[in-house]
Amino acid sequence: MAGKVLDGVTSDPVTMGWMVGAPPPPEKRILAARADHMRFPMIRWSYSNMRSFTPTVRVAASGHGVPFPRNLRPDLGAVRFTPLGSDTEISFEQSLTRVFTDGILVLHKGEVVFERWFGITTPETRHIAFSVTKSFVGTLAELLIGEGRIDLGARVDSVIPELASSGFGSATIGQVHDMTTALDYSEDYADPNSGIGAYSAALGLTPRPTGYTGPHNLWDYLRTVPGTGAHGERFVYRTPNTDVLAWIITRIEGKPLHQMLSERLWQPLGMLGDADLMVDEVGTPFAGGGLNLRLEDLLRFGEALRNDGQNNGVVVIPEADVARIRRGGKPAHFDPVAYPHLPGWSYGSQWWHAHDNHGALTGRGIHGQTLWIDPQAEMVIARFGSHPIATSSANDPLSIPAWRALADALNP
Amino acid sequence: MAGKVLDGVTSDPVTMGWMVGAPPPPEKRILAARADHMRFPMIRWSYSNMRSFTPTVRVAASGHGVPFPRNLRPDLGAVRFTPLGSDTEISFEQSLTRVFTDGILVLHKGEVVFERWFGITTPETRHIAFSVTKSFVGTLAELLIGEGRIDLGARVDSVIPELASSGFGSATIGQVHDMTTALDYSEDYADPNSGIGAYSAALGLTPRPTGYTGPHNLWDYLRTVPGTGAHGERFVYRTPNTDVLAWIITRIEGKPLHQMLSERLWQPLGMLGDADLMVDEVGTPFAGGGLNLRLEDLLRFGEALRNDGQNNGVVVIPEADVARIRRGGKPAHFDPVAYPHLPGWSYGSQWWHAHDNHGALTGRGIHGQTLWIDPQAEMVIARFGSHPIATSSANDPLSIPAWRALADALNP
Repeated sequence: MAGKVLDGVTSDPVTMGWMVGAPPPPEKRILAARADHMRFPMIRWSYSNMRSFTPTVRVAASGHGVPFPRNLRPDLGAVRFTPLGSDTEISFEQSLTRVFTDGILVLHKGEVVFERWFGITTPETRHIAFSVTKSFVGTLAELLIGEGRIDLGARVDSVIPELASSGFGSATIGQVHDMTTALDYSEDYADPNSGIGAYSAALGLTPRPTGYTGPHNLWDYLRTVPGTGAHGERFVYRTPNTDVLAWIITRIEGKPLHQMLSERLWQPLGMLGDADLMVDEVGTPFAGGGLNLRLEDLLRFGEALRNDGQNNGVVVIPEADVARIRRGGKPAHFDPVAYPHLPGWSYGSQWWHAHDNHGALTGRGIHGQTLWIDPQAEMVIARFGSHPIATSSANDPLSIPAWRALADALNP
Repeated sequence: MAGKVLDGVTSDPVTMGWMVGAPPPPEKRILAARADHMRFPMIRWSYSNMRSFTPTVRVAASGHGVPFPRNLRPDLGAVRFTPLGSDTEISFEQSLTRVFTDGILVLHKGEVVFERWFGITTPETRHIAFSVTKSFVGTLAELLIGEGRIDLGARVDSVIPELASSGFGSATIGQVHDMTTALDYSEDYADPNSGIGAYSAALGLTPRPTGYTGPHNLWDYLRTVPGTGAHGERFVYRTPNTDVLAWIITRIEGKPLHQMLSERLWQPLGMLGDADLMVDEVGTPFAGGGLNLRLEDLLRFGEALRNDGQNNGVVVIPEADVARIRRGGKPAHFDPVAYPHLPGWSYGSQWWHAHDNHGALTGRGIHGQTLWIDPQAEMVIARFGSHPIATSSANDPLSIPAWRALADALNP
């Protein structure tokens, strides 16, 4: 394979034959013990099968979900746009394999107008959402904020005394919610010695090194994250903030996260299927990125946000909570150097906000996971992917202009 | 806790507070790394939550299942019987906690007449079925036998050459199916050096010892099991037979076991929910005991067998296949010393057969898992449990006479 670069077509997991046979040939096996499930091109298979690699808990749907109506417009594949940083137009269809799409659904005015599946991913697949999980957690937090049960101005250690000596303890809950905490922690996915590496080892998502003596669960890990500098001055994307937020809402609500997700979102939103939520060794859900769900259920979540929190006329997320989410964070806290493709954006309530003239907001997860809500265009897009490069900046140039081109095509 | 013996009431997992809190206190945590999830009294919680400890795959239901009608007869709790080896009658109700019941359903003529839940187990719980899993696998095998795709007289190594040098290679598929293979393997759950211990380590169900160099998956393990003596002479209960049987049907069918279970049983039987099937490191389902399902779905499987393989008038298991299953194995192969509570019984097609005047057959799993089918009484019983003693002989004296007393009470 040396010298051969796999692209979005040649890396197709069906073509590559991962995990087929009884038993699969050794060279076609994906072993978590080798961290294969987190490395390209194996991720083209594993991201659709995470529960077979790791402990999970069930986020229960009601069993009464109804799919969105279909009103397919195949012509949307021909929609053309110019990728960021390029001067050559491509079609939306062409862009799909270039960003290693596993599945994509476009919803317009409540109808699915575009639907494509690749490789082994199907409508039934529970695909990992990675950090789009955070937007679910942030929305649960907004529900509790709206009920007056979370005070964004309170210090984290007033709710979680165990975090007093960590970098989180002195931050406010609002700073955790908007990720403006000042922590000595790096989220560089390309650096094995970064904070995210220690986090992953504690979580058990990747194998622990021989002789590992670090924390064995999320609770113990979060207490080790040191602070540095002053909170509240700038947005820096750090996944453990979300796990702290989940710890806060879990303690306040007195229920585990998967139960909250089921009662407050999965059941009232009529999700089509149960979701799988990855857990650490003591059963703590991986709130920062462990949700595995059906793509249409991700779409359904976005559509509820677009509809001011309603599902079929029933209020699931109070309108005031949705309004707070949509308001976004502070663009002044956003680092334009770190996010060259996201000028003028902000991060708030665990959502990314474009602050554009469409009021777009988005949930983003590594390797291409996307929930894009464009209220002005009455459009929601859900996409799963397995891009070889983790960071969203690898696919933003081919994604963000595509979403706007689709919005324009749907609203001529 | 020294000196205090927990019984079926005092070991209630709610009372004991396992895994409650954010985080659970250290002494209330159940850690797979310590094998807590396989030890009493933690099993009263863990057996209802196995997917949170181990990788699993999904056995997909159709999503259109309908619960059995309820026609509850609380008076059945007062049915009295005499436990085997005792001369004192007790009530069915009294027996429930004595065998550490987690949930029980009694179906009579297609209606649920008795239903009880204990501890943390609910109708939604996917509880481990342990070796009742084997009866599902054996039934799949009978489907392929009925279709002429499995030849019971063929040697195992004619289908699975990889097993040629193992003890299984020279056995016939029928001998594997009925567990009359002659293997150097012991299934003593109380002996840590028994064959089942090595099997469990290969599977990853229990932590591997430091420096472990044995097999890391089921395929590699099965090849290590040596033979001894002649096949076909007597029934000896050995779980790896079922994994070999699953290997055979998986290879013949060209589909993984969870897909076969879904397509051939879960969907056509209208199961109420997806099941969780535990897998080893390479994604191989634990066919010998890894199925976790809703209790009512276990009941539904039994009811189909009672109804000659039909579900609501639709043939799911052809009547001839059901007839072969019901015929049972050879009582002459059964060891009366090993099974003092099961006189005249046999094992065949991965089911246990009473050969009594009711034509009863049963799926049995350690720690009390039971599917009891009494065709004469038009009765099916499904029970989940977490008995501190693994072997069924620990609860047979309180179970087998109870089933007959219920049959008599329901058919006066």
